[in-house]
Amino acid sequence: MPNTSPGYAVTVRVETPSHSGATSDLVAAVSRSGGELTALDVVESHADRLVVDVTCDAVDAAHADTITKTLTGIPRVRVRKVSDRTFLMHLGGKLEVNPKVPLKHRDDLSRAYTPGVARVCRAIAENPADVRRLTIKRNTVAVVTDGSAVLGLGNIGPAAALPVMEGKAALFKQFAGVDAWPVCLGTQDTGKIVEIVLALSTVYGGINLEDIAAPRCFEIERRLREQLDIPVFHDDQHGTAIVVLAALTNALRVVGKQRPEIRVVVSGVGAAGHAIVKLLLAQGVRDIVACDRRGVVHRGRGEMDPARQWIADHTNPRGLTGTLAESLRGADVFIGVSAPNLLTGDDIAAMADDAIVFALANPDPEVDPLAARAHAAVVATGRSDFPNQINNVLAFPGFFRGMLDAGAHEITEAVMLAAATAIADRVGPDELNASYIVPSVFDRQVAPEVAAAVQRAASREGDRT
Amino acid sequence: MPNTSPGYAVTVRVETPSHSGATSDLVAAVSRSGGELTALDVVESHADRLVVDVTCDAVDAAHADTITKTLTGIPRVRVRKVSDRTFLMHLGGKLEVNPKVPLKHRDDLSRAYTPGVARVCRAIAENPADVRRLTIKRNTVAVVTDGSAVLGLGNIGPAAALPVMEGKAALFKQFAGVDAWPVCLGTQDTGKIVEIVLALSTVYGGINLEDIAAPRCFEIERRLREQLDIPVFHDDQHGTAIVVLAALTNALRVVGKQRPEIRVVVSGVGAAGHAIVKLLLAQGVRDIVACDRRGVVHRGRGEMDPARQWIADHTNPRGLTGTLAESLRGADVFIGVSAPNLLTGDDIAAMADDAIVFALANPDPEVDPLAARAHAAVVATGRSDFPNQINNVLAFPGFFRGMLDAGAHEITEAVMLAAATAIADRVGPDELNASYIVPSVFDRQVAPEVAAAVQRAASREGDRT
Repeated sequence: MPNTSPGYAVTVRVETPSHSGATSDLVAAVSRSGGELTALDVVESHADRLVVDVTCDAVDAAHADTITKTLTGIPRVRVRKVSDRTFLMHLGGKLEVNPKVPLKHRDDLSRAYTPGVARVCRAIAENPADVRRLTIKRNTVAVVTDGSAVLGLGNIGPAAALPVMEGKAALFKQFAGVDAWPVCLGTQDTGKIVEIVLALSTVYGGINLEDIAAPRCFEIERRLREQLDIPVFHDDQHGTAIVVLAALTNALRVVGKQRPEIRVVVSGVGAAGHAIVKLLLAQGVRDIVACDRRGVVHRGRGEMDPARQWIADHTNPRGLTGTLAESLRGADVFIGVSAPNLLTGDDIAAMADDAIVFALANPDPEVDPLAARAHAAVVATGRSDFPNQINNVLAFPGFFRGMLDAGAHEITEAVMLAAATAIADRVGPDELNASYIVPSVFDRQVAPEVAAAVQRAASREGDRT
Repeated sequence: MPNTSPGYAVTVRVETPSHSGATSDLVAAVSRSGGELTALDVVESHADRLVVDVTCDAVDAAHADTITKTLTGIPRVRVRKVSDRTFLMHLGGKLEVNPKVPLKHRDDLSRAYTPGVARVCRAIAENPADVRRLTIKRNTVAVVTDGSAVLGLGNIGPAAALPVMEGKAALFKQFAGVDAWPVCLGTQDTGKIVEIVLALSTVYGGINLEDIAAPRCFEIERRLREQLDIPVFHDDQHGTAIVVLAALTNALRVVGKQRPEIRVVVSGVGAAGHAIVKLLLAQGVRDIVACDRRGVVHRGRGEMDPARQWIADHTNPRGLTGTLAESLRGADVFIGVSAPNLLTGDDIAAMADDAIVFALANPDPEVDPLAARAHAAVVATGRSDFPNQINNVLAFPGFFRGMLDAGAHEITEAVMLAAATAIADRVGPDELNASYIVPSVFDRQVAPEVAAAVQRAASREGDRT
């Protein structure tokens, strides 16, 4: 039976006669239909009847319907209303913009607005670098998408992508105090996206590209980095790579292996896979085999887009040419950023001893984590209901916090390594084990430590240039 | 002696010997140099000395320097630091972005982010109109500029314009609960501006164009209105026109004249002047003469841009052709949205009896308000240190609040009239006099009443189409 999730929580308001077994009937009905009861609130009480809000988690939307029907089926119980907690939370959006300065009196207005603000404008006009000191540019990041690769939903466009971007912005603020704003573009033309982001970049201290499909995301990031003096970071690429590197670092400590010795297989060469390969190569992993839907990405396989060709030219030292499953035989590490249900427990069993498996396809991983755990030493997924959750929120808030505070814009491998190391080091030697290779996303120290490490590394890079 | 202003407030931290007359010496020095003392705070006290923060308003930045020097001149007083309160307020910008939803626990994340948010995305993908219900589009306005016509500073560009846009956004939130976000574009090409705003419009429920120079602002607004299904409103045009109409309505009540009878002269045919002329014509004013730097804008004056040609074709029924001063003779109303020091008291004296003068050039009006008051019945300016301040903040917050709540996008003259009427009616018959023709900007009822009036009018417009 799949797990219920708070992402599918409903509140069913029912009217029930007020006999002594009334509420336990409701509880039993929820349980019978497989829901997870989280709250029972009497909102009205009369001599002959009660009105009760029954809140429970369901497996999915259809299951929530089933639970509601089961409640309706109780004799003399009437459903008044069904509220979906997720949708309720989204009414009117998840972000607000607030002033940081008082605006109660005329004096306040004279400083925050005319005439006082004119002096601040003039100061920036005379010394353009002051925009970083005197405006929101100091602390603000744009979350930019064209809606072409959103979660597991694919190309849903800018409007449907907006709730994800709002959520991203909320996480930036909550975890690292970074102000972030959604920019959802109604074009998927690479050239136009670059032009638009350049045109609106004045306001921002950083650009976080999000949910833009490969391979366009590579060119967009590259061209923006060439032309902007603020950091440009595609989180689906580098945030994932940073957290994977941190997790791998700790997993290798658990199993006692070293980076130059290991054989790594990466499934998926989109945004995440490509960036993971690049970062691992830069950090001393020598034997990486990358696979896509057609199997191993190898030289001579035929016409490939430039990003895939780069992979073919820089990986696969043993010249493999077969399937994903074949390449896994004897491998030490599997990193999946691709699609669900590609592998079985037997495929994992064929890996080397003390294998490490990161099956990160969301929501369903490349291999059943329980099956993997029967054969591998360390297993990680992107899911919150298994140990070792590989979640980008461990990286991006602290990363931008550090870059903003350093006033730097070059994102080098040294800077990314610093972030990965800070994440890995949050797990102390006495805490490290096969089920705890990355810190919890709610560990409040992660973001500040990542920020400090990134700020130090980015400032050193700045000094060198 | 010009007035001191809180826009030029400084805090001077001084160290002074601790004799009994120490602080009164400081007070006297500020007074002697013409500053307006607003606070005196002892921040440190030792046996032999005090450290005191002396806060005062100055006339301008040079005057603040003079005050500081005067303080330094007191024997044995040492200035440790001078802090400009306006600049202090601007450090790091004036806005922040905050989540509206809790993000403390995993359940929160499951609803606000993955997996729960995917359902909201899917709902919008299936029913695009739901973006207005389920995202920040419900409550958010973009404040869009290219920095080409900022305050009295002119074409200072997007970075230098940002503090003004932040201030605007702060006012939107403070006065009407509207979330607003600065969009400062690094291009002044009309076509590109239109394309960029269209591309980023998904996130927004309205577009407030700001500080974009005429005549490009007219084409930009027109083309955006043609292509967007959200309201597009250039505040420098229509916000000004709405508040001017409200003020004129009340001023005419004070002097007992009617719109169809009066002769109106408008100085300035940029964004504000053009919109004022249009709105007054639509509201029954028949005799309007518009002037620019060359004098009366009249037919046959030669080559003119389309906006100015429209003015020439629709105003000036008596066929005047001379200067601004000449056109003022016998006029009932002067509305200046142009430049400082164009007129004298004698020019006002030549107007009709019970003249109305709105001298709105900022910071220095077209005519000295005191000189105007000697000859006119009602005088208004844009300044906060004279009665009857014509300030757009009376209009734009409530205006967008009403449009967002109506879910409407067509901004007709009926809608603008509704806003103007609501503003004018905030001044009750028992309150109305020559020195009180518009409500105070701090009258908290203005925005809600404007919003309600606009919502009613815009909804009616929507019903008709």
